[in-house]
Amino acid sequence: MKMSKHTYTQFDNELEAIRKRLLEMGGLVAQQLTRAIEGLGTGNHELLEQVIADDRKVNDEEVALDDACIHVIARHAPAAGDLRMVMTMIQMITDLERIGDEAKKIAKAGRQIIDSDAAFVPKVELRHVSSMVVEMLQGALDAFARMDPTASPDIVRRDKEVDAIFKGIMRQLITYMMEDPRVITRSLDVLFIAKSIERIGDHTKNLSEYVVYMVKGRDVRHEGVEALERASGPN
Amino acid sequence: MKMSKHTYTQFDNELEAIRKRLLEMGGLVAQQLTRAIEGLGTGNHELLEQVIADDRKVNDEEVALDDACIHVIARHAPAAGDLRMVMTMIQMITDLERIGDEAKKIAKAGRQIIDSDAAFVPKVELRHVSSMVVEMLQGALDAFARMDPTASPDIVRRDKEVDAIFKGIMRQLITYMMEDPRVITRSLDVLFIAKSIERIGDHTKNLSEYVVYMVKGRDVRHEGVEALERASGPN
Repeated sequence: MKMSKHTYTQFDNELEAIRKRLLEMGGLVAQQLTRAIEGLGTGNHELLEQVIADDRKVNDEEVALDDACIHVIARHAPAAGDLRMVMTMIQMITDLERIGDEAKKIAKAGRQIIDSDAAFVPKVELRHVSSMVVEMLQGALDAFARMDPTASPDIVRRDKEVDAIFKGIMRQLITYMMEDPRVITRSLDVLFIAKSIERIGDHTKNLSEYVVYMVKGRDVRHEGVEALERASGPN
Repeated sequence: MKMSKHTYTQFDNELEAIRKRLLEMGGLVAQQLTRAIEGLGTGNHELLEQVIADDRKVNDEEVALDDACIHVIARHAPAAGDLRMVMTMIQMITDLERIGDEAKKIAKAGRQIIDSDAAFVPKVELRHVSSMVVEMLQGALDAFARMDPTASPDIVRRDKEVDAIFKGIMRQLITYMMEDPRVITRSLDVLFIAKSIERIGDHTKNLSEYVVYMVKGRDVRHEGVEALERASGPN
């Protein structure tokens, strides 16, 4: 199944267009998360509504990009390496869409919280952990754009930090709830926001592992950070 | 790109083998959820340990099946309908693996709870909602096995019920926490268990939507249950 030069160039162009759109989709969900936390922190309703409205764009992009990936395979029957890239993108699209979903959940919970007088909300910690996660996400997207998985082990390690920060926020909320049972309902909204950020960290970890698979051809998803370190280094 | 009869049969065999393994993987994760809730309800540590141990099997299957899917595409360059089936399976594998992950989380939280004297745990409700979700999961796997998406709208509707039950459990837990702040920490373990079941419902909804896409070629993931109803009916 040899491709003519024309077909090959055509394939490259289509792939490049998908890559570009995927990166834009990644930029959009990163923006959703940033805005959701910003809206929560500053009490800006408009930002939160924007995040919720943008969820539709993200969903539409998921459907359109999945479709584009399938068509590029059907039309060009790419060989191993190229096929791996398309498959990786299909999996990345799913994780990006779910990040968008979590951002929407944060915005919705945020809407409830900023209407109540919730002095106990650990805004500084939420802002800190969410900007960590946004940085990780940008790192994973960069790694994908440059086809360079060297940053992946670091992203996986930082995801462990995110998990630890989540546990800290949870402990803090438990203390507040014990001191004043009237804040329990609101505290749970905050807890779910923290949980959403933690899940976005998980999805980002997935993204960075897919990049290793795409570039190195090794599936390291369940092998721990040391295996990832070895796989993502120079050959 | 016409295939010889031999190649075609070979492709069918490979696809059938993957389909069978995917269904087995689905059976395994359904069993994980059942066991996790059973172990929590009866205080059976062994069951919970089994669920945690089986997570490795599920992870291994994810990696092996993804690999098999990519190879079947690379070897046979299937045409539109067959390609759609393989792509659907790749997405289903991801959701199945994440269901396994949630079951493991339930088992781990269950381990903590059964060691404490937690009379407030809404075991009946958890058992009820988890058996609903297991039924939905089996329905989605059946629909996949029979290539028949008629059950999909019903599964999506029941996922909404699951969400409502989750909210009920949460309200109940809030009441307990308000009455006795000493149970807050344990209640949050229970809350996360309920949340995991709710997420498994979401993944199951995804599975049933993929079956519609696979059989009908229409992507109905973000279009609501009415569009799904129309798409999954007879042509």
